[in-house]
Amino acid sequence: MSNPVLVEVTRGPLVESRHRGAVSVSDAEGRSVFAVGDVAARVFPRSAIKALQAIALVESGAADRYGFSDEELALACASHSGEPAHVAGVERMLAKSGLDASALRCGVHWPISQSAAYALARTGEASALHNNCSGKHAGFLCLACAMGVDTADYFRPEHPVQRQVRAVLEDFTGAALGQEVCAIDGCSVPTWAVPLQNLAHGFAKFGTGRGLSSSRAAAAARLRQACTSNPWFVAGTERFCTQIMQLFGAGVFVKTGAEGVYCAALPQQGLGIAIKCDDGAARAAQGSWPR
Amino acid sequence: MSNPVLVEVTRGPLVESRHRGAVSVSDAEGRSVFAVGDVAARVFPRSAIKALQAIALVESGAADRYGFSDEELALACASHSGEPAHVAGVERMLAKSGLDASALRCGVHWPISQSAAYALARTGEASALHNNCSGKHAGFLCLACAMGVDTADYFRPEHPVQRQVRAVLEDFTGAALGQEVCAIDGCSVPTWAVPLQNLAHGFAKFGTGRGLSSSRAAAAARLRQACTSNPWFVAGTERFCTQIMQLFGAGVFVKTGAEGVYCAALPQQGLGIAIKCDDGAARAAQGSWPR
Repeated sequence: MSNPVLVEVTRGPLVESRHRGAVSVSDAEGRSVFAVGDVAARVFPRSAIKALQAIALVESGAADRYGFSDEELALACASHSGEPAHVAGVERMLAKSGLDASALRCGVHWPISQSAAYALARTGEASALHNNCSGKHAGFLCLACAMGVDTADYFRPEHPVQRQVRAVLEDFTGAALGQEVCAIDGCSVPTWAVPLQNLAHGFAKFGTGRGLSSSRAAAAARLRQACTSNPWFVAGTERFCTQIMQLFGAGVFVKTGAEGVYCAALPQQGLGIAIKCDDGAARAAQGSWPR
Repeated sequence: MSNPVLVEVTRGPLVESRHRGAVSVSDAEGRSVFAVGDVAARVFPRSAIKALQAIALVESGAADRYGFSDEELALACASHSGEPAHVAGVERMLAKSGLDASALRCGVHWPISQSAAYALARTGEASALHNNCSGKHAGFLCLACAMGVDTADYFRPEHPVQRQVRAVLEDFTGAALGQEVCAIDGCSVPTWAVPLQNLAHGFAKFGTGRGLSSSRAAAAARLRQACTSNPWFVAGTERFCTQIMQLFGAGVFVKTGAEGVYCAALPQQGLGIAIKCDDGAARAAQGSWPR
């Protein structure tokens, strides 16, 4: 089956390129409010669910035990641009857990921000701290420390941290996340494919707390507050996620994921949104990437 | 209508993203040998036709008058990576025409090659010479000098250079290229949308010389020889176009264009190929972009 064209890219008088995809909007009870395309198909949410991957960090008490600030909680939910204050924040998170950058298993890439990358090139080299996922990984490491388990294998599917993450995702989305839908994300942690409509449902629960235990609802509220109060730490300069949360404040939580995934929670409306562009194009799922 | 899926992107056990598109393979008489999808739809060929945009440079005698080497002719057909030897070559082309980088109207961007960009950032700044189209623009400027016309407006559709380019494209593709299918390319010159099957036909003529005047066929042969003998100058280190021509030598001419266009000429088989991915994805139209 063929999903409809969601976005047309024009050049002069003609359409030059087209992006197909699916959109699901759900309330916190899982009722579909709006749907386009095949919303029952499973998609890898990739980085769009970093806030859900950070729930256990807060709910377990680990974030409080190590004294994480709101900026640092936002970094745990971030695909940050690798700008200097992002890097410094992740270093602080690791130091609070008694660790340093050598504990990160996210891999190395140059900053997403081109200007940050060129500035870095003038004076140094990229490290794991510049990886857009380094804050999420620092959160996983902090959780492992608080749980008293080993920190070397925190990224593996069978590690207690990732088992906890998976249980939280199943609770939010209501989808069974077995091995047959598990793959490895770009930063080496597991990613589970979820039906798009379940992803939207999960974000409606994240935005409202409805359908969650009280401790889990409190963790969701705290992460939303941390992110929407510190949107620069969730993405970075001129990034779409940052700009949307700067505009709407506590009214909208948004998060991009790789391969054309985009998710949002609208607490006041009680809705969650999940978008997947078939072709994986970020420019169609959200505003354009920063240059 | 919906073009078929040409490429699937997998992650673990599942297909994560999909790219639709059309493919046309034509002989030099314009007979379709293979077709997938809507090959009658017009597409902007973008940079895929730089070799056709350079025909007038050679056919007019301008390239000989200014003593362009084969490497420099390859640069006139290139989307180069902005590596040091590309930049030096374009500077030489301009100097041979009595000009310098200030004459370029292609705009400035950082080298396509990430390693070249970071190396440049350590010591300097990007200039118009680093623009992947700078060799094509140097060719346009040289042609304007040889024609004895002004060089300031060489990029405008009404300038004699672009009128000549348009006439050559109509001759190769057999498609009428009126204002209603004209737009502006990323580097500021006009681009005309051509039915995909006509683009394939044009590349079959480029590869064989059949259906062209003898002077035009000679210019096509010289540009093919220059590119397939100097494939690094057509793209750069680890680039797909370069690697293909290194592998096949004179047997295959290939050229990428923006927004998922890819073209090839197979002289020995007498065939031309044109590919357009609906969503504009380079990763589906060719191998992946260099990092």
